[in-house]
Amino acid sequence: MEKMDTSFIPDLPTGGPLEVYRKRANFDWKRLRLILEKEQGLRIKYKVWRRLESDPLFAHPSRTPPMDQQKRLAAMQVNRMKQLQLVPKEIESLSFSAKTKYLMEINQALASYSPSLSVKIALSVGLFNNAIRAMGTEKHKKYIEAAWNREVITCLAVTELSHGSNTKRIRTTATYDPRMQEFVINTPDFEAAKCWVGNMGKTATIAMTFANLITADGENHGLHGFLIPIRDPKTLISYPGVLVGDIGEKSGLNGIDNGFVVFTNYRIPLDNHLNRTGNVTPEGVYESVFTDPSQALGAALESFSAGRVGIMQEAANTLCSAAVIAVRYAAVRKQFGPERQGEEMPIIEYQLHQYRIFPILAAACVQKIAVEELSNTYLAIIAGSQDDSNGFDVLSQKAAEIHAIISASKPRLTWSARDAIQEARESCGGHGYLQASRLGQMRSDHDPLCTYEGDNNVLGQQASNWLLRQWNAKELETPIGSVKFLERRHQLLQLHYAQLVQQSPMDTWEFALSCYEWLLCHLMSRTSAHIETQLSSGVHRFEARNNAQVVGARQLSLAFAEYMALSGFVGHVRQLGVEQPYAEVLRLLYDVYAMWLLEQHMTMFYVGGFAVGGAFAGAVQERLLQSCAKLKDVAVSVADAIAPPDFALKSVIARADGLLYENLQNEFMTNEGAFQRPDWWRDVIIPQSQEKSKL
Amino acid sequence: MEKMDTSFIPDLPTGGPLEVYRKRANFDWKRLRLILEKEQGLRIKYKVWRRLESDPLFAHPSRTPPMDQQKRLAAMQVNRMKQLQLVPKEIESLSFSAKTKYLMEINQALASYSPSLSVKIALSVGLFNNAIRAMGTEKHKKYIEAAWNREVITCLAVTELSHGSNTKRIRTTATYDPRMQEFVINTPDFEAAKCWVGNMGKTATIAMTFANLITADGENHGLHGFLIPIRDPKTLISYPGVLVGDIGEKSGLNGIDNGFVVFTNYRIPLDNHLNRTGNVTPEGVYESVFTDPSQALGAALESFSAGRVGIMQEAANTLCSAAVIAVRYAAVRKQFGPERQGEEMPIIEYQLHQYRIFPILAAACVQKIAVEELSNTYLAIIAGSQDDSNGFDVLSQKAAEIHAIISASKPRLTWSARDAIQEARESCGGHGYLQASRLGQMRSDHDPLCTYEGDNNVLGQQASNWLLRQWNAKELETPIGSVKFLERRHQLLQLHYAQLVQQSPMDTWEFALSCYEWLLCHLMSRTSAHIETQLSSGVHRFEARNNAQVVGARQLSLAFAEYMALSGFVGHVRQLGVEQPYAEVLRLLYDVYAMWLLEQHMTMFYVGGFAVGGAFAGAVQERLLQSCAKLKDVAVSVADAIAPPDFALKSVIARADGLLYENLQNEFMTNEGAFQRPDWWRDVIIPQSQEKSKL
Repeated sequence: MEKMDTSFIPDLPTGGPLEVYRKRANFDWKRLRLILEKEQGLRIKYKVWRRLESDPLFAHPSRTPPMDQQKRLAAMQVNRMKQLQLVPKEIESLSFSAKTKYLMEINQALASYSPSLSVKIALSVGLFNNAIRAMGTEKHKKYIEAAWNREVITCLAVTELSHGSNTKRIRTTATYDPRMQEFVINTPDFEAAKCWVGNMGKTATIAMTFANLITADGENHGLHGFLIPIRDPKTLISYPGVLVGDIGEKSGLNGIDNGFVVFTNYRIPLDNHLNRTGNVTPEGVYESVFTDPSQALGAALESFSAGRVGIMQEAANTLCSAAVIAVRYAAVRKQFGPERQGEEMPIIEYQLHQYRIFPILAAACVQKIAVEELSNTYLAIIAGSQDDSNGFDVLSQKAAEIHAIISASKPRLTWSARDAIQEARESCGGHGYLQASRLGQMRSDHDPLCTYEGDNNVLGQQASNWLLRQWNAKELETPIGSVKFLERRHQLLQLHYAQLVQQSPMDTWEFALSCYEWLLCHLMSRTSAHIETQLSSGVHRFEARNNAQVVGARQLSLAFAEYMALSGFVGHVRQLGVEQPYAEVLRLLYDVYAMWLLEQHMTMFYVGGFAVGGAFAGAVQERLLQSCAKLKDVAVSVADAIAPPDFALKSVIARADGLLYENLQNEFMTNEGAFQRPDWWRDVIIPQSQEKSKL
Repeated sequence: MEKMDTSFIPDLPTGGPLEVYRKRANFDWKRLRLILEKEQGLRIKYKVWRRLESDPLFAHPSRTPPMDQQKRLAAMQVNRMKQLQLVPKEIESLSFSAKTKYLMEINQALASYSPSLSVKIALSVGLFNNAIRAMGTEKHKKYIEAAWNREVITCLAVTELSHGSNTKRIRTTATYDPRMQEFVINTPDFEAAKCWVGNMGKTATIAMTFANLITADGENHGLHGFLIPIRDPKTLISYPGVLVGDIGEKSGLNGIDNGFVVFTNYRIPLDNHLNRTGNVTPEGVYESVFTDPSQALGAALESFSAGRVGIMQEAANTLCSAAVIAVRYAAVRKQFGPERQGEEMPIIEYQLHQYRIFPILAAACVQKIAVEELSNTYLAIIAGSQDDSNGFDVLSQKAAEIHAIISASKPRLTWSARDAIQEARESCGGHGYLQASRLGQMRSDHDPLCTYEGDNNVLGQQASNWLLRQWNAKELETPIGSVKFLERRHQLLQLHYAQLVQQSPMDTWEFALSCYEWLLCHLMSRTSAHIETQLSSGVHRFEARNNAQVVGARQLSLAFAEYMALSGFVGHVRQLGVEQPYAEVLRLLYDVYAMWLLEQHMTMFYVGGFAVGGAFAGAVQERLLQSCAKLKDVAVSVADAIAPPDFALKSVIARADGLLYENLQNEFMTNEGAFQRPDWWRDVIIPQSQEKSKL
């Protein structure tokens, strides 16, 4: 194993109740940290956290501020970014993918501190710039710099009140007026009002808006992007013809001002049309670069994939935070014990508790590596697209494949994080319900990730559609290699547990991967057959596909994402060549996660004939429980290796010092007005006549 | 079917987008409503909702008020209860169970309006009074009346900072001082501070407190209840020796002032000891009524069961609310469609969507009836305990059995509701994330129900322990009959799908029930065998039990709860004798819920040998999907039959008028400050020198 510089990683507090477990680890948590996360990225994150911590503007409010103040704070924090100099000048000259990677690290560090802040920045800079890059031309580049310099505050207006997932049905219009050389923007009715647009509610001055481009002859050329100024950047007052407002309180992320807008004969210059894929001449003639307008849209929307990759990174970090809170709490909290009057046991010692929280810890570690691998693959494809020596065919195959992988993985990860937060909350009992545990806020802020940048259920269908296409194609189109195993589909479909365990015993990496390969083949075969049956009985293809979701397609895309994560992890770990104790713990984490995942699919292994009788399910569960038991002694150190610093984690029940009760005491005693008689005390007292009272 | 008076149920708005589905129902939703819920209870609920709606104090705030204001509002609303005259005078003279039932109806109506309010009332009246009744004697009865009259504001102080589930380890002490005839209350250290006590943070004047009773000879007589005055009821200022404060912000239920308290040599009179099960003479001699002090505690804690039944009722209502929101939204929201340019389809038409939300609707209806049945059983046992003609043995068997049923059902229901809210949120997409959809608040307010009044995982173990005792007992002790089927355990364990489907085809009520009977026997056998193996290899019983949770015990108690719900529903429906269309819809709901539940247990049916190959899983899923397809046309009317009025549901995306977009428009346009430029606009603008700007 190469020599590692761990000196930049801050030490943990010594002593305290966590030490008893920390001493049991036979490895250095800092080295494990650098195995789970690349040094460069980690250095960026610690830099971000240090700068935030030292700036009073980023001190955590002692309680949730009123909505308006949350918005103000997030907006001010976004503006402060520049002064914090998180992005060094030399980054500008790097390649798109190197630069994106740098920004993604910053985004992750910010997201673990405050999702409202990171989302606001992503909307203001990342997503906006990607959209300009994908849809704009030379003349629009100035907007990118203006957004960086905060001369404009940007937002992306896609969703309308009655259309979210089905973006093709967006109804806002941009009608070209050749006489004035302007587009006239209109919202036909309130159902077509742009809404949920982040940054739009209170602050955005310009909206990158999707609208139907209509030429003077009345022809609709489909959806295009337009840069629509909505507020005066000097006064934040909206322009006439633009009715823009804030949609109000949400379940979380209230630092973001989500807005809606209605345009009424609102005019913008011709140049504000993002004309990379389709152009309108000053005279009003529409020229398309692509022949198929849906292809043009596809290319435009492709630029949103970066957002999904970012979401996956955030979700992996959320898994980490949830795991850290659950593990640290479980190691300190004692409840019940074998003897009536004897010592109580830390709840981490209970098998059921291990079964509840260790899969979260394992998922966090495995996904941390898997998401990093996937991000690199994605960025390499983007980089490859910039030199077209590969040829258009390979590139479009790669784009389709990475889109499928991301469309499967974003739902898998965001749902995993959602469930992890909830399990962590419950596993911390009542104290997990304290706002200062952070779990409630984490749940509320994470929740929309299951919906935005592609609804999870809709995205999953895109992934399964791609998989089913591969299943039925004469020739596999898998330049990334995600479904290369389909070449062995005939052997795989014959596979069963008794045979597999002979050729790849459970202690091989291949065991779980082979189970997944069988499972994926079976699900594709099953789903495909179901669709064929429906089609041959005259059902419309649209309906046949819909009716195949429950029987197989839905599970297919989830299983595919899990397979990609596990194989990404295995591929990465195998070429690491780490020392024994690290190899052991990585293996343990893999086993816990893989066995736990296999358990979720157990029914299909039986229904499909891979397993018969109790042996397979029993073996998987036994290995899971045994791995949990082994993980138990090192779980605290594993958690240390993925924990954000206390400042970013901000959980009173999971500080690195492990002083659970002392920290809770502090929290209780110092919370604002804790001991104050309420101002409204008279409203509570019911005046009693002394005679009537019997007390 | 008996004639029903449905006239007291308010009509629904006519017209609107829901009408297309409402017209498809071949039944009267009001009649269905009275089948799903008893007339008397429903009348009480409508009365409560009407009174609340007409009192401005209960108008919904337009956005979440600051924490302190939430507390104030909830406290004022509690005080207003008396003026609203929700409890008629004649109730006082009814039996305990009739009265409790009446109050439970009120509680349900209040909970569906505001959980903070209902919990506060339960703490102030219900739980406190039950505790006094269970532990106090004649001299304490005055406190019950005082609590009713709000002369005292009460709370129940059980949990300490470091002890929640394991109440036996509570460390607060009450040491008797014979010289002064007083108890001296002490909190040994902050870990023993009472905390999370609802009502204590800001308002309670007296705390029903569990503490170790210590006599002058230093002997600890175990936990007893004490009435400890903590604040002056005239000023709400705390007494010297009582350090009482508010624990601060929580993830939800912020209308409740949860508090903590530290007692330092704080003296209370001898009479404030709740001495029903153990008495201290003025001279300081301790006399116990029970010989085993743990039995004494058991009797005392038994009084908390009413709280768990109340929670189950609330969770069933929460299931209803989540289902109503999801169904109404799905019937109106359209997205995608078979033809590129054609009509889009309401999302309720998609099979996957039906599969996601109809089990919630079905669970809501089935559980509504099942919980009502269980509540009646519980109340009948309480009533029976008041005349002891049954003898102590039968009574204690009944108490153990109902405790097991409740301990299994409270986790099952609260987890079902938790998952239902989340699925409803996601199924309503982004709009479900709007605070005005109510789903976020519902999730936050429901969350602690999985933890308080018995942590779900701990309660489940109590249920499975009872079940395993029955499994291993020479003679069944099931006066309620919940495990009567164990008499047939030998046949049941031999049962398999192919045989069952012959003797009870899937369209019989028995099919699912028999599957469950097999499953329960299998799980008991499996779990019991696992424990025996461990014991015989020398493992401590405590550990052997813990290690049997994952392999079977956990699933056992959940399956038991589901079986009780399904059989309770079937028992009730069978003796109803309703007309055909109602019988059909009840059957559909049963099928959807039962098949969906069976799917969750599918692995065990295969592992245990009940099923082989794809037939069973395939048949269950097919019946589930077919039943969903049939339910689709009437789902809106079923939802109408369980919907709280708009005022109580307060979801902008699920009003009875179905005017989704119009209501959203209203919400967006009227939310406070929607169009206002923020006061802090200058903080967002970065001053730009005109030269530098390129725009």
